[in-house]
Parts: sequence; structure tokens; C-alpha cells
Amino acid sequence: MQDPFLQKKQNILKEISQNSDDNLDASPKGTIDEHCIPIINLINTHPKMVTTSSCSGRVSVYLEGVQNNKIISKGNEGKWIFVTHDTSNLDNWYQNINFKYDITKFPTSENLRSILYKFEALILHVKCKDISTANKLYQIAMNCGFRESGIGSNYNVAIRISIKLDIPIGFMDESQYNEDGEESYNCFVSKEYLKYITKVSFDRFKENLKKLNQLHEAIDKFIKEDNDGNDEFIERIESVNIKEGWESKEERRARMIKEGLERKEKMRRTKLEEAIRNDDGNIQSLV
Amino acid sequence: MQDPFLQKKQNILKEISQNSDDNLDASPKGTIDEHCIPIINLINTHPKMVTTSSCSGRVSVYLEGVQNNKIISKGNEGKWIFVTHDTSNLDNWYQNINFKYDITKFPTSENLRSILYKFEALILHVKCKDISTANKLYQIAMNCGFRESGIGSNYNVAIRISIKLDIPIGFMDESQYNEDGEESYNCFVSKEYLKYITKVSFDRFKENLKKLNQLHEAIDKFIKEDNDGNDEFIERIESVNIKEGWESKEERRARMIKEGLERKEKMRRTKLEEAIRNDDGNIQSLV
Repeated sequence: MQDPFLQKKQNILKEISQNSDDNLDASPKGTIDEHCIPIINLINTHPKMVTTSSCSGRVSVYLEGVQNNKIISKGNEGKWIFVTHDTSNLDNWYQNINFKYDITKFPTSENLRSILYKFEALILHVKCKDISTANKLYQIAMNCGFRESGIGSNYNVAIRISIKLDIPIGFMDESQYNEDGEESYNCFVSKEYLKYITKVSFDRFKENLKKLNQLHEAIDKFIKEDNDGNDEFIERIESVNIKEGWESKEERRARMIKEGLERKEKMRRTKLEEAIRNDDGNIQSLV
Repeated sequence: MQDPFLQKKQNILKEISQNSDDNLDASPKGTIDEHCIPIINLINTHPKMVTTSSCSGRVSVYLEGVQNNKIISKGNEGKWIFVTHDTSNLDNWYQNINFKYDITKFPTSENLRSILYKFEALILHVKCKDISTANKLYQIAMNCGFRESGIGSNYNVAIRISIKLDIPIGFMDESQYNEDGEESYNCFVSKEYLKYITKVSFDRFKENLKKLNQLHEAIDKFIKEDNDGNDEFIERIESVNIKEGWESKEERRARMIKEGLERKEKMRRTKLEEAIRNDDGNIQSLV
């Protein structure tokens, strides 16, 4: 009989990869973020963990929506004017937006929709099989500086960090179109200010990626330690390769065995070298 | 023998109120926020919960610090230029700061310390006696829209919501003083922009307070339901009155009994009124 958690895990992963193929993800991008794939694949090698959602961090420019004549940040008519999960297309992003710059023109009515420039950091949701696994993952995240992490219901761990920007930059009138019939936006900060916060966002991306790598390493270390000398663990790994080119179950098994052997070999060498140092210098080379 | 959780709870509360008296709190203000006192007192009536830290929400203007020649957001030399937990002294806050406005002057070196304008929402940490209480509190918070809440180690629940602003507004040179020998700051947004984000902050405060009240009501409802018909519960309440004028253990006991009787009375009336509506109109008044 199959482990119910593993069965649930397989269903979740199947759904994620289907959604990813069909672009059905709720996010504006609709696919799993490139930067998240390594950590997702890593976490999913652990038999008691499964990733349920992720965002690697992003810059977005968001036009608030309207619902029942009330301005709200989500829902009807809310719109992403610009989104990027990477720095590669971040430079000069504002050149492609229909901004009308006027640093003296601020909204005069509450019915005008705000435009916000946001940096949002990595967020990762991981469903765990039991409270002990959830607690371990939570502790790892906290130790890596993801201080806004927490365990939710059913051992769902949310991994969050406070690297952010949340900046009002403009607004839109109800029916504001430019000559070509396209939407245009009032921008009450200067182009130089947009340039500056874009530069700051590069730093935020850098910091965010550094933390993502730190988290990756810490989880990797935990999984290896949890696994050490436990061959059954490897047997139970259900590797799901979201993207072509990632190692299969068999490849991962082979790599882990190889790495285990390498670690043992390294330990042997370290001990030998220590022995050499403590010796009178007669032994020259043993390896 | 006393319940170990209750003992811990009493120690924590004693420490909080001492710190509050002695201004030893780690926050710049050093005392418990006025707006948090009702919800803190409410939560602490529950025998399986104790509040460990809180911030009712605030606007702050923060000058980044320096450590090992590296700019960091916390630690050495980091400084709050302005903090308020209330809207009463928010208007025109920037008039009292030594700002040198120049919307064309941005930092040219990475060694310049940034100045950030922030709105941070309510945050509440509650230590619970067991996982079941922690789960209940977590669910209440999530249902009220505190979507960034989570349970940490030892049944510590963090209640968080994503109402925020995080805006770079200026910077400071290493030794920048005005004529009077006081620090002065470069501000690369206009006074009109500061005025606008201050106005936005009023809305954020309003939204935040609305959510705080919603949370208060939901926790109140939960505590009453948890308590209903359980006289022992009332006996075990360890009410700690952080501020004079708040009800004592005995007063709360009396109030809860009174409210219980009132609820029963109200239910009786509702049933009667329903009976009247279903009747042919012969009964005019029963109460």
C-alpha cells in the first residue's frame, strides 16, 4: 500500500507540471520561476516534503483594481503593467510604458486608481508529511534569515523574507487613453526617480538571490544529513523533473551514492593528512 | 501544583509590564502601543495564550546603518528619524526634519546611507500552550485576512498582514551636518510627494485599524465560545492589567457572567419575536 502523503505529493506535482505546461498558474507569468526550479527539485527529493507554490522574487508595477466603486488592490480590473522575475529585462522598463510624467499632479479624488512599484522577495510554500519535518524546515528557513516564515495548517510551511519595496508612483483616471487608444498613466515621480528605484531593485534581487542560495545550501545539507547511511531514503525518493535536463530518479540516486562515497573518501584523506601533520614528516604522500 | 504554562505566562507578562514601565522595550518607543492594549488584554484572558510582543502598526522614516563599511538596514548607526504609531502627529511630520530637497540629486556612491519611508502593519506574537490552541488562533487570523501569519517553534503564533509602504526618499552623506551642527538629509522626492505618501499612510492606518478590530472581534467570539458554559474557564483566567482602568479578574468574571446572561436573554427575545411574526398579530409586546 502506498504512503498517502506520497500519493498526495505525486498528485500535487502532477498538477503543478500540468499547470506549468498549460499556463494555468494564477500568477501573471503562469509558469514556475526559473530561479525556483533547483530548490523545488531539491525539496521534492525529500520524501516528507512537497512544494505547493513558489515565486522567486519579482519587480512588478501594479494598477489597483475597482470593485463596487471601491478601489482595491486585487480583483476586478486590477492589472500588472509590468512584471519581471529577473534583472535581464529590468533596465529601462519604464521606457516601454505610456507614462505621462508630471511631478506636480497628484490624485485629487479617492476614485483614482493608484499605481504601485513593488519588489517582492522569494516566497515558497512546502507541504510536509508531519510536524517534525515542518519544524525542521521552519528552523532552517529562520536560521537563513527568512524571519517571516511560519507553519500553517496541515504542516504547510511558508518561507518568507522581508526584502521589499512598495512605492506609489502614479495613478490612472477612469478612462484615460492616449492618442492610439491605449491606456496611459499619470506618473508623479520623475524618470530619474524610476531609474533610481530600478537600481535599488537590482540590489534587492541580488540580496534575494543570495538568500535563496543560502536556503538551498542549508536544505541540501539537511537532506544529505537526514539521508546519510540511509539507503532506504534514496529508494523512496520520488524525483519529479519539472524541466528537461534535470536529473532523473536514477541519476539522482547515482549522484547521491557517488557524493556519499566522495564524502567518505574526503574524510579518510583529512584524517590521513592530520596523521601526517602529527607525524615527524616521514610520510610524504599517501594519496 | 501550578500549570507550567501559566507560570511561564505570568513571568512573561510581568516582564512585559516591567519593561513597559522602565522603557526597556527594544522598540524605539519603548512602551506597548496604545492600540494593542485591548487585544493584548483580551488574548491574555485565555488560559492557553500569552502575548509576547506587539506593534500596532507604524509609520517610520529610517536611516540605514553602517557596519564594517557596509550599508545595512539594522544595527550600528541605523537610526529612526521619525516614528509614529498614530495618525495624531503624522500630518506635516516632514516639516520638523532637516531635509534638503533636491529631486535631481541621487546617491552617486554605494557608501551613502539610504533613507526609507515605511508603513508597517500590526504584528502580534502569541505563545500558546498547545498545538490545538495555536492552530485555532492561526485560523482565526487567516480568516480575518492576516494572510502572512504562521506558527513558529513552541506554538508561537505570529499574526501578520500585508499592508505596507517601503519607499526610498533620500540619503545621507557620511558627515552631513547643517549650520547648527545637526544632521541634515538629502531628500530626492518633492515635499508634495511626501505629503501624498503621508495621505496614503492615513488610509493604511485606517485599513490596519479596521483589521485589528476585526481580529479583536473574532478572538473575542472564539474566547466566549470556548468559555460558554465552562465556569472553570473563568476561574482560571489570569487577567493582567497592563494599564490602569482595565478590568480586574473579578470584574471580567462579573462581566462575562453578565454577558452570558444577556446573550441568553437576547436569544429568548429573538425566539419570542419570531413566534410573534409567525403568529397572526395577536401578541403585541412580550418584553
